[in-house]
Amino acid sequence: LDVIGIDWGSSNRRAYWLEDSGVLRAQREDEQGVLAVAGSTDFAVSLASWIGDWRVQSGGAVILSGMIGSHSGWQEAPYLEVPLPLDRLPAETVPLAQDPRIRFVPGLCQREPGPDVMRGEEMQLLGAWKLSAADGWYVLPGTHSKWALLRDGVVQRFHTFMTGELYARLSEKGALAAVIAPASTEDDDAFLQAVRDVRASTALAQLFSVRSGVLLGSLPSHAARARLSGLLIGEEFAAMASFGASPGERLHILGSSALARRYDAAARMLGHPTVLHDPVRCHLRALAEFAR
Amino acid sequence: LDVIGIDWGSSNRRAYWLEDSGVLRAQREDEQGVLAVAGSTDFAVSLASWIGDWRVQSGGAVILSGMIGSHSGWQEAPYLEVPLPLDRLPAETVPLAQDPRIRFVPGLCQREPGPDVMRGEEMQLLGAWKLSAADGWYVLPGTHSKWALLRDGVVQRFHTFMTGELYARLSEKGALAAVIAPASTEDDDAFLQAVRDVRASTALAQLFSVRSGVLLGSLPSHAARARLSGLLIGEEFAAMASFGASPGERLHILGSSALARRYDAAARMLGHPTVLHDPVRCHLRALAEFAR
Repeated sequence: LDVIGIDWGSSNRRAYWLEDSGVLRAQREDEQGVLAVAGSTDFAVSLASWIGDWRVQSGGAVILSGMIGSHSGWQEAPYLEVPLPLDRLPAETVPLAQDPRIRFVPGLCQREPGPDVMRGEEMQLLGAWKLSAADGWYVLPGTHSKWALLRDGVVQRFHTFMTGELYARLSEKGALAAVIAPASTEDDDAFLQAVRDVRASTALAQLFSVRSGVLLGSLPSHAARARLSGLLIGEEFAAMASFGASPGERLHILGSSALARRYDAAARMLGHPTVLHDPVRCHLRALAEFAR
Repeated sequence: LDVIGIDWGSSNRRAYWLEDSGVLRAQREDEQGVLAVAGSTDFAVSLASWIGDWRVQSGGAVILSGMIGSHSGWQEAPYLEVPLPLDRLPAETVPLAQDPRIRFVPGLCQREPGPDVMRGEEMQLLGAWKLSAADGWYVLPGTHSKWALLRDGVVQRFHTFMTGELYARLSEKGALAAVIAPASTEDDDAFLQAVRDVRASTALAQLFSVRSGVLLGSLPSHAARARLSGLLIGEEFAAMASFGASPGERLHILGSSALARRYDAAARMLGHPTVLHDPVRCHLRALAEFAR
């Protein structure tokens, strides 16, 4: 059977029409994320006007993942607690009360060692594991980047960092934004130097040095953005080393963006062998599990 | 001679008219900080309309400290590099080109061990040292909190944390702001627990737990704000312990606000004897040095 998968996050959404044969027939993307739709219109109306044609033509079920299944989304799909075998996700979807052909993928939660939650990333993890069958740490860069430990397809534990959100907030206004050159280019050296520096003391203890370095002339303003990024991302690696993702451990990085390449560069410098996975390919591979 | 001191920062300014006798004759405060005045009007016009009457009546010099003496202020007073004897500040003021009765106090800078700068806090440090004559670490909580090490009235080195700015940005919007109860009260237990937790792993590694803790019910939403504050402030103490401000070291905290009291509570829990200094009293004590 055909299946329609929608990764419906806070700020945007992506739809994939996967044919029974496994071929991707069509895909769409827009910025009608949960925050844009909620309150302004109805999720059902929004979905129908967006991919109603697909539903008529394919006759397939709709699999929704991401914030759409949260308390502030369309209908809540309660979190599943780790350790969780990813294979269980298809059986754990929650049907929409008014239309059971629309189903929500539950997110994951963790209570120990620290409270944590994810919604949407579990689809990419399922797909990546189906494609690679590899144990180890999976890194999902983003607004809230996630690190998840998989053993035999079971998510053992995971850890969220607010790296992307902090980077966005600190570079849009405030003391650091004021010294970041508007047209700063990628600067791999400054980025990697910051990743190294954060091993000596934490990112928060060094953030202000982005400003003072520029003011005192020891940091070129075009490199300030890369240094901010390196401090924040570097701290993920430093923290994860203490949580078990030590140098030498292979890292699976899910991403194809410039951001994922930056994580890859940091990982390799720190001694991690890396494997890069295409997130769309992972999502589609996961989706195939829901068509069965 | 009488002297007028103005602590003119980015967002607001405070003026003190100190009589020759050492008595504070008057004080004023408004929100015409450097950012508000720059571009919209002239600093000279702004000053005259604000405390022109004091200048006429007192005949005293005007001592300006803070961002007003920065590159983006009225006239730049170059940084003095540490180690710096605070006693040198009065002799190092920079006169305004058009009116030498108006003088700018230079800020301090540091190149090693890491680049850092301060503007305005040097006045409070001078005053606190004149009042206490005590060696040790001085803590100045704020948007960019500062820790400075004094020996024999010499600033040996200092360290800036963007704690206040991060706290403001993270609690105004985004993933954490969404779970912070609007009318959250002070919660000393949640604050101190976060200060303790940050000794196990860094604040950035735990920030998202403020959100997930509330979502999973392990953190009451009314305690989320206190936990955010405790993680950020706690990390200052953890970092400073590795920079030499170890538990057992006496800390001089400059502040009289609720924020300063929170630093004091964290310090005492971590085994630091503390001394609290009133920042206005410190500023006035420093100002007396400029009247001579």
